[in-house]
Amino acid sequence: MVDLIEKKRDGLPLTKEEIEWCVAGYTNGEIPDYQMSALAMAIYFQDLNEDERAELTMSMAESGDQIDLSQIEGIKVDKHSTGGVGDKTTIALAPLVAALGVPVAKMSGRGLGHTGGTIDKLEAIPGFDCEMDTDTFVSLVNKNKVAVAGQTGNLTPADKKLYALRDVTGSVNAMALIASSIMSKKIASGADAIVLDVKTGSGAFMKTLEDSTALAQAMVNIGDRVGRQTMAIISDMSQPLGKAVGNALEIQEAIDVVKGKGPDDVRELCLVLGSHMVYFAKKAPSVEAARQMLIEVIENGKAEEVLKTFIAAQGGNPNVVDDPTIFAQAQHKIAVKATTAGTVESIAANQIGVAAMKLGAGRATKEDEIDLSVGLILEKKVGDRVEKGDTLVTLHASTMQVDEVTDLIHEAYKIGTHDTPAPTLIYKEVYPS
Amino acid sequence: MVDLIEKKRDGLPLTKEEIEWCVAGYTNGEIPDYQMSALAMAIYFQDLNEDERAELTMSMAESGDQIDLSQIEGIKVDKHSTGGVGDKTTIALAPLVAALGVPVAKMSGRGLGHTGGTIDKLEAIPGFDCEMDTDTFVSLVNKNKVAVAGQTGNLTPADKKLYALRDVTGSVNAMALIASSIMSKKIASGADAIVLDVKTGSGAFMKTLEDSTALAQAMVNIGDRVGRQTMAIISDMSQPLGKAVGNALEIQEAIDVVKGKGPDDVRELCLVLGSHMVYFAKKAPSVEAARQMLIEVIENGKAEEVLKTFIAAQGGNPNVVDDPTIFAQAQHKIAVKATTAGTVESIAANQIGVAAMKLGAGRATKEDEIDLSVGLILEKKVGDRVEKGDTLVTLHASTMQVDEVTDLIHEAYKIGTHDTPAPTLIYKEVYPS
Repeated sequence: MVDLIEKKRDGLPLTKEEIEWCVAGYTNGEIPDYQMSALAMAIYFQDLNEDERAELTMSMAESGDQIDLSQIEGIKVDKHSTGGVGDKTTIALAPLVAALGVPVAKMSGRGLGHTGGTIDKLEAIPGFDCEMDTDTFVSLVNKNKVAVAGQTGNLTPADKKLYALRDVTGSVNAMALIASSIMSKKIASGADAIVLDVKTGSGAFMKTLEDSTALAQAMVNIGDRVGRQTMAIISDMSQPLGKAVGNALEIQEAIDVVKGKGPDDVRELCLVLGSHMVYFAKKAPSVEAARQMLIEVIENGKAEEVLKTFIAAQGGNPNVVDDPTIFAQAQHKIAVKATTAGTVESIAANQIGVAAMKLGAGRATKEDEIDLSVGLILEKKVGDRVEKGDTLVTLHASTMQVDEVTDLIHEAYKIGTHDTPAPTLIYKEVYPS
Repeated sequence: MVDLIEKKRDGLPLTKEEIEWCVAGYTNGEIPDYQMSALAMAIYFQDLNEDERAELTMSMAESGDQIDLSQIEGIKVDKHSTGGVGDKTTIALAPLVAALGVPVAKMSGRGLGHTGGTIDKLEAIPGFDCEMDTDTFVSLVNKNKVAVAGQTGNLTPADKKLYALRDVTGSVNAMALIASSIMSKKIASGADAIVLDVKTGSGAFMKTLEDSTALAQAMVNIGDRVGRQTMAIISDMSQPLGKAVGNALEIQEAIDVVKGKGPDDVRELCLVLGSHMVYFAKKAPSVEAARQMLIEVIENGKAEEVLKTFIAAQGGNPNVVDDPTIFAQAQHKIAVKATTAGTVESIAANQIGVAAMKLGAGRATKEDEIDLSVGLILEKKVGDRVEKGDTLVTLHASTMQVDEVTDLIHEAYKIGTHDTPAPTLIYKEVYPS
């Protein structure tokens, strides 16, 4: 192991065998943390070449259980977002692409963050249940083209262990390791093809377009090398996506999109990501055709129908699609008002996320309980004109004591005198180079 | 700690408080190995500035026991060598500078290597004993100006722990960490001033003059910053120093030097190092004057007298100075002869060291027993003319089965047709910049 560390430290590439040996040894505890953290730091400085990244990804994907989706008919296209505030695209996309025959076999988690994960959000639908065995999961996907299950089994233990170590040893930001980490999970989850949504901007993990592009390029190149059709779009996270932040609130916004309503940005992002998914699944002759087909299933109600079937099949009340009052409602709706007139120049996504968390929408530790009903609605977005006294944000809260949250909202909103256009939503598409 | 790692990773300097906190936390186990190894690797790439190196040195020096030499009169000048094969200068230097009134209060160890440490070598003198309490040590130095004691107490535990970690995590070669490690031990040992002998060449830790100079500069700058007068000389280790390699054999060569005999290179190196020590101790108005004074105490027998007093004071038989047959003798003396005529173009010091070790002169692990009598005498050095059948090396062995050692000697000696000058002994002096 010392030889491997020194080799990488000196800028030399590691072989397939060395990477496999290292990942296996670290997973089974033969290689201690203190050597792995030194190697990760050496990689931070010396990087991994394309071969090494692909080898690392596959070694980590194969380090634990791998999900076998071979019993599901068709090309399984997975979508992955690098994460941001208000991102509910998965929930809208699932019925949209399923309506076009693309099998959506989504294994998802709860996770920590400003709001819950996809599973938490779906559980805001009364009766909805994500716990099922693999046979049920497979048969549901084959029947309805869509199912969402909680993650079971021990996926990518090498990645879990390495990520936890990097987190406390200053090598989280090594591009090669980030890309390999994400891709190893997608591959272990059984994806045949992958559409990546890499966020960029102040609320994203990668703040600059340059960094986001580099991460996207790294991931699509890995996908290409390990034989998975992969592409990425770079989308905006300089402000939250859409208007709703919170679990039940985000589900409602996702439902709106499926019904042809909802905020323009969420709808457009779903159409862009969805059209690439449909094209990768070979259900459309081109990305443009796929987009048109998605608009059709929204307009003709097919997508809404699939959504209701999907909800009902997992024990949920499908009437939520037509009647949002069925969702648990927060006790208090409190308007946070503008104290000055002007144009919204920016909305700090992270602060909005923290505000949602303080309202109770997210988890800081695994043990925290989420209040699915709480959250907030952004009534004004970047570029909007506001008058003094206009509502910027409507809080959905379980308490009237929201001073701290209100302060966060005021801090997050920058209202000024400059005419500011709405930010670009989709910056670019990235393909293997 | 993660913040500190990331700060250093990003090339920012750490503060005095951060370094102190980090060294203290690592020493007491609060900071785990996996974080320290990541920091060490970040330092490998981003280096430490002069302030940071000084802070790290002092923090490590203060991490455990520190030797208090304040009861010893005069300026305590310590000499440190970065190590090489055949380096017996400490043993000759001690009586030489003591004869001029420089207090030599040497704490020394046994260590691992091609031969034993200074303590092992001295114990080749029948009766010689390095075990004594601090009061005896101090009074001996005050009385005779020289004493050598085995190291007691827990000196620089932070350095010991960090060095062991770096050894298995690929960051041994970080210049800043090497320099701080050496200097922390010198400072914890109570030195007022320090003369460094940094070796250069194939048999040295630093193979090139450039690297050796960088290490020397790093160390003298640390010494200067922490208030210890410090200088370094860069001396040759492209071949072994002197002719003798082995414990009793090296002692005899050191005695020869004190008596005005011995190989030219050992004598010259002792005069150079000694003159700087005498000057630092303010016992001479200039380095040149100090050199002349050293030559005088060699020629007038004063140094020899001090040597005998020193040996007798620690229980040893002072007659060894006049009668080398008193030393334990190896059972067999075996000549390794030249198989070809020519000029000695090089002698690989490391291979000569390994040969001595295989004869039993050194320790590979702490538990190994040393045979103090064995070793070898280099009868030919670089630049010497040899005829076929001339003795290159005389082995002092406990067995006649020396084929492996003989092969090593033949490999180590490169005999060719090029006229080769003896290598430069002293390359340069390095002072704080």
